[in-house]
Amino acid sequence: MNSFGRIFRINIFGESHGTLVGVCIDGCCRGIELGENDFLCDIQRRKSGKRGTTLRAEDDIPEIVSGVFNGFTTGAPITILFKNKNVNSDNYLQFKTQPRPSHSDFVAAKKFDGFNDYRGSGHFSGRLTLPLVAAGVIAKKIVSDIKINANIINVGNENDINETIEKAIADGDSAGGIIECVAKNIPIGLGEPFFDSVESQIAHLAFSIPAVKGIEFGAGFSAANMRGSQHNDMIINEYGKTATNNAGGVVGGITNGNDLIFRIAVKPAASIAKQQKTFNFEHKKISDLKIFGKHDACIALRIPVVVEAITAIALADFILLKK
Amino acid sequence: MNSFGRIFRINIFGESHGTLVGVCIDGCCRGIELGENDFLCDIQRRKSGKRGTTLRAEDDIPEIVSGVFNGFTTGAPITILFKNKNVNSDNYLQFKTQPRPSHSDFVAAKKFDGFNDYRGSGHFSGRLTLPLVAAGVIAKKIVSDIKINANIINVGNENDINETIEKAIADGDSAGGIIECVAKNIPIGLGEPFFDSVESQIAHLAFSIPAVKGIEFGAGFSAANMRGSQHNDMIINEYGKTATNNAGGVVGGITNGNDLIFRIAVKPAASIAKQQKTFNFEHKKISDLKIFGKHDACIALRIPVVVEAITAIALADFILLKK
Amino acid sequence: MNSFGRIFRINIFGESHGTLVGVCIDGCCRGIELGENDFLCDIQRRKSGKRGTTLRAEDDIPEIVSGVFNGFTTGAPITILFKNKNVNSDNYLQFKTQPRPSHSDFVAAKKFDGFNDYRGSGHFSGRLTLPLVAAGVIAKKIVSDIKINANIINVGNENDINETIEKAIADGDSAGGIIECVAKNIPIGLGEPFFDSVESQIAHLAFSIPAVKGIEFGAGFSAANMRGSQHNDMIINEYGKTATNNAGGVVGGITNGNDLIFRIAVKPAASIAKQQKTFNFEHKKISDLKIFGKHDACIALRIPVVVEAITAIALADFILLKK
Amino acid sequence: MNSFGRIFRINIFGESHGTLVGVCIDGCCRGIELGENDFLCDIQRRKSGKRGTTLRAEDDIPEIVSGVFNGFTTGAPITILFKNKNVNSDNYLQFKTQPRPSHSDFVAAKKFDGFNDYRGSGHFSGRLTLPLVAAGVIAKKIVSDIKINANIINVGNENDINETIEKAIADGDSAGGIIECVAKNIPIGLGEPFFDSVESQIAHLAFSIPAVKGIEFGAGFSAANMRGSQHNDMIINEYGKTATNNAGGVVGGITNGNDLIFRIAVKPAASIAKQQKTFNFEHKKISDLKIFGKHDACIALRIPVVVEAITAIALADFILLKK
Repeated sequence: MNSFGRIFRINIFGESHGTLVGVCIDGCCRGIELGENDFLCDIQRRKSGKRGTTLRAEDDIPEIVSGVFNGFTTGAPITILFKNKNVNSDNYLQFKTQPRPSHSDFVAAKKFDGFNDYRGSGHFSGRLTLPLVAAGVIAKKIVSDIKINANIINVGNENDINETIEKAIADGDSAGGIIECVAKNIPIGLGEPFFDSVESQIAHLAFSIPAVKGIEFGAGFSAANMRGSQHNDMIINEYGKTATNNAGGVVGGITNGNDLIFRIAVKPAASIAKQQKTFNFEHKKISDLKIFGKHDACIALRIPVVVEAITAIALADFILLKK
Repeated sequence: MNSFGRIFRINIFGESHGTLVGVCIDGCCRGIELGENDFLCDIQRRKSGKRGTTLRAEDDIPEIVSGVFNGFTTGAPITILFKNKNVNSDNYLQFKTQPRPSHSDFVAAKKFDGFNDYRGSGHFSGRLTLPLVAAGVIAKKIVSDIKINANIINVGNENDINETIEKAIADGDSAGGIIECVAKNIPIGLGEPFFDSVESQIAHLAFSIPAVKGIEFGAGFSAANMRGSQHNDMIINEYGKTATNNAGGVVGGITNGNDLIFRIAVKPAASIAKQQKTFNFEHKKISDLKIFGKHDACIALRIPVVVEAITAIALADFILLKK
Repeated sequence: MNSFGRIFRINIFGESHGTLVGVCIDGCCRGIELGENDFLCDIQRRKSGKRGTTLRAEDDIPEIVSGVFNGFTTGAPITILFKNKNVNSDNYLQFKTQPRPSHSDFVAAKKFDGFNDYRGSGHFSGRLTLPLVAAGVIAKKIVSDIKINANIINVGNENDINETIEKAIADGDSAGGIIECVAKNIPIGLGEPFFDSVESQIAHLAFSIPAVKGIEFGAGFSAANMRGSQHNDMIINEYGKTATNNAGGVVGGITNGNDLIFRIAVKPAASIAKQQKTFNFEHKKISDLKIFGKHDACIALRIPVVVEAITAIALADFILLKK
Repeated sequence: MNSFGRIFRINIFGESHGTLVGVCIDGCCRGIELGENDFLCDIQRRKSGKRGTTLRAEDDIPEIVSGVFNGFTTGAPITILFKNKNVNSDNYLQFKTQPRPSHSDFVAAKKFDGFNDYRGSGHFSGRLTLPLVAAGVIAKKIVSDIKINANIINVGNENDINETIEKAIADGDSAGGIIECVAKNIPIGLGEPFFDSVESQIAHLAFSIPAVKGIEFGAGFSAANMRGSQHNDMIINEYGKTATNNAGGVVGGITNGNDLIFRIAVKPAASIAKQQKTFNFEHKKISDLKIFGKHDACIALRIPVVVEAITAIALADFILLKK
């Protein structure tokens, strides 16, 4: 449940306002050069602080506490910890009586009979994507020939992303966005029938990222509007290169050697400054809700590097399986 | 790889033109009334024969060969077999030298070094959705309080579905479509953080269905264009009922008791009668390809019952886990 | 539960007096030559008919119904079925009211609330070792450089095995035995810390064989009586060859290149002709029990080939993992 | 590989002389009262310091860093860390050129191409049983009605255990031992056919404990010498109570409600002070080896609480599965 992968297997743990968050990776090959500096770039990309993201300031320094010796992976489980430091849990108690709309407050309390750590959304927090990014850094080293790149391609359906975000901030509101990920130089033949297609594994991981509500590969939803004669990608050489790439690089669930391309839809963050109405479980009626604290106006801004991470994790597992 | 699920665990096997296709289900509870008649309705819905589907005629009679005794499941693995009878493998040899565009021919041969059973696409065939539907019938019995219903909501972006299909047939072409699935009366709290969200499990299974290229929950891709204040679903009573359902019944990866709603995009089938061009690996150049044989003009027509099946399978596993 | 293995993954299904027993193997490499004749030798070794084994006569003909094409494995799941033919279920109904001592009758009925197929012990029957042997045949092809050999080394603590069995038969009784398995030419480095040691995986599989009650590797239980200076195996060359082999070829859970050696204890079969006393659940008192039907006087005689099979299955999985 | 369990799933990580050792437990129920004090008793029982055990002094203070909130488990993964403090790695470099007989030095270096952390045997160290004991403490809370008790029943085949150990110490040698574990008040019906019998799961875990070389249930190896009429356990009441318990509480792989009884064989520790001969890989010849440092003369003394832990872990998983 909190682990994923067959060979390259990751286990995620920790809570937003607890002692730490972390990841334990089992099945990583021995002999990969790895130090704490390797994580800095991707961690920086995920960090808050940019306009439109939360003001919670965490240094996010990775501590490698197992599985690395003399600067190289040993083959034993690799554990990486991130201490939580900038924690203020004052504002969360109110959500026990008045759960935020479209947030995990209500379902988490129901599922865990009120024993869940509700502070900062606990184990449901977007902070858990930090260990995911760390696992992605290692996965990227395993699939080092593949170049993975994810970017926001629009926010709130607008071209001028900055302006859209400024308007949302000004209104005490939040904005959604779409992220596109492209992986180049992929070997032919990754993916395992029947259930572990490339799309299945990536989609599985993508929907573990909080706020993701859709995924499509290649032409995706627009493929539903096409004819076969339009959609089919003509093969043009003996390496399987195709003239078009409506398949997004995956046919029959297996990579065909063309670029892997997919897009994910990120909903606007549920925690907004603007006053809302929702059910108050103490008073047993709908009443006003005002959310204080530090939140992201556009959570999608922080997700591209997470999308790269899950892509690398899925591909690393496929590549180790293929070997 | 060919199995899925933690408690209710299904294993799919067989090839399109081999002896049979089948499923072995481990972890199903004892004491469920089950006979071969229980499968007929869903199998009929999946069958070809309708306008726009292949003319391959299979009787699709299920044989329950283990796990059922005196009309009830025993708790031991349930195995169900479907013999392949209407098989004509004449037309498939050509695809070894000239693989069909956007079909598994090329990747399957590459992945399995030419040892794959290429007849009727072998283990990559849509025929493997038949045992999936059979597993779904049993899963529906486990989640019997939940009502799952999937339908085509458009074909080729047109309202008049029949006309769109007729035009595609007339042109020797194929059409894609979009299927919407709604599951009502879902308990609160299904789904397991961090990796086994309801969306993750359903998406994982959905992308194992051949031709699926996208999935979205609730508002899905349109959520990316919304503000938080628009997207948030106000809770209106103590059972967690919401005024709107942009979340599609899943928040934080967990069911919130509202209807589970998702849509999947089905691409147009790759095998079309219309002449195409693609690479010929023998002559080492692009040349004409004419595909003969029996194929679906709109494969999406046969998929709603498969989507119901995978939804039931995912939910059955969550429900058994919750117990 | 009914499946085992990480890469080479086997699923066992069927009941003793049902339609069939079978196995579905996922993760087997493509390109292995495989036909029904390959199974005959090992199946013959497992067969009954020898003095001291049951008179139930089954032809045990394997039907390969998926995963093999043109005489080679394809990489898709391999399914092998064995029909049950010589079935007489008359004598089993009495065990519902008076379960046999040390037999699964009582626990199976309790565990499955009476829904279990009790005929011939259903899914608990030794007949389920037939598909295990079939999986072993394929596993042996994967580990073809390793020579695995299992033999009975004593029956009822006697040297003259035949005489011991004759006496047991004459008394309407049964006898236990010890089987030793030696695997030669094993590569160094098989086994996966922390939980998947070679001993762990083999022991796990060994205890799935009905009637097995103990396992020991190398010096085994006698190691408990030794000093370190006696037990330690001195390494004598750069390939890791040791002067003695008290370790049984496994150190730290990992193969060290010396012969893998282990022994298993097989209890005497529970079904004996001799009259016994045990609790009658209908009359609620202890009363006489007389068991009719066909049973093995020395089930251990049929188990060496099963022990070879589980050894090959465990090693095949390790070897595929190592690649 | 470093994880075990289907519902109650444990992940072990860390190295003997690294930063820490730890465990992450996924699938533990919410609402169990848990604090660091709960671990002290079992940790103390595992500790060294007694006569016959190593002088390495670790305080072994558990740090619960996730999954517990306000003194109760939350349902999210529980992570427990133990810092390594009393570390002296001076004496281990020599084992790279002259691996200790019957120790993991040789196989670990081979398996991981020399990248393994060899200090204190790294991830192969008996220190990894510390997080196992911690997981056992939590498992015992889940199976709280079951009383599990393990004891040494002999050391070096002698009754006077103290004297045997004193002699071994005086000789610079080590001694093996046998541990018996009894679990009382077990529900009927734990264990999952075909592969996950109670014996299979316990044996799997038992062989992950360093130095274990054999396991037997109930009459075990002596069952091989018995007749069925002697070995069969007559049922004497409607709760399944038996007059004898040769089965050790497990029939058909399933608990029958009688005491679960098994014994494990522990070999004498490989690291002894007494001079030995073994192969020197630098000089390419057999030469003298003298091992310095802190080692256990009778490692079996520290293992009973570990055996209880693995028993509780196996049973907890079965009990959660049964629910």
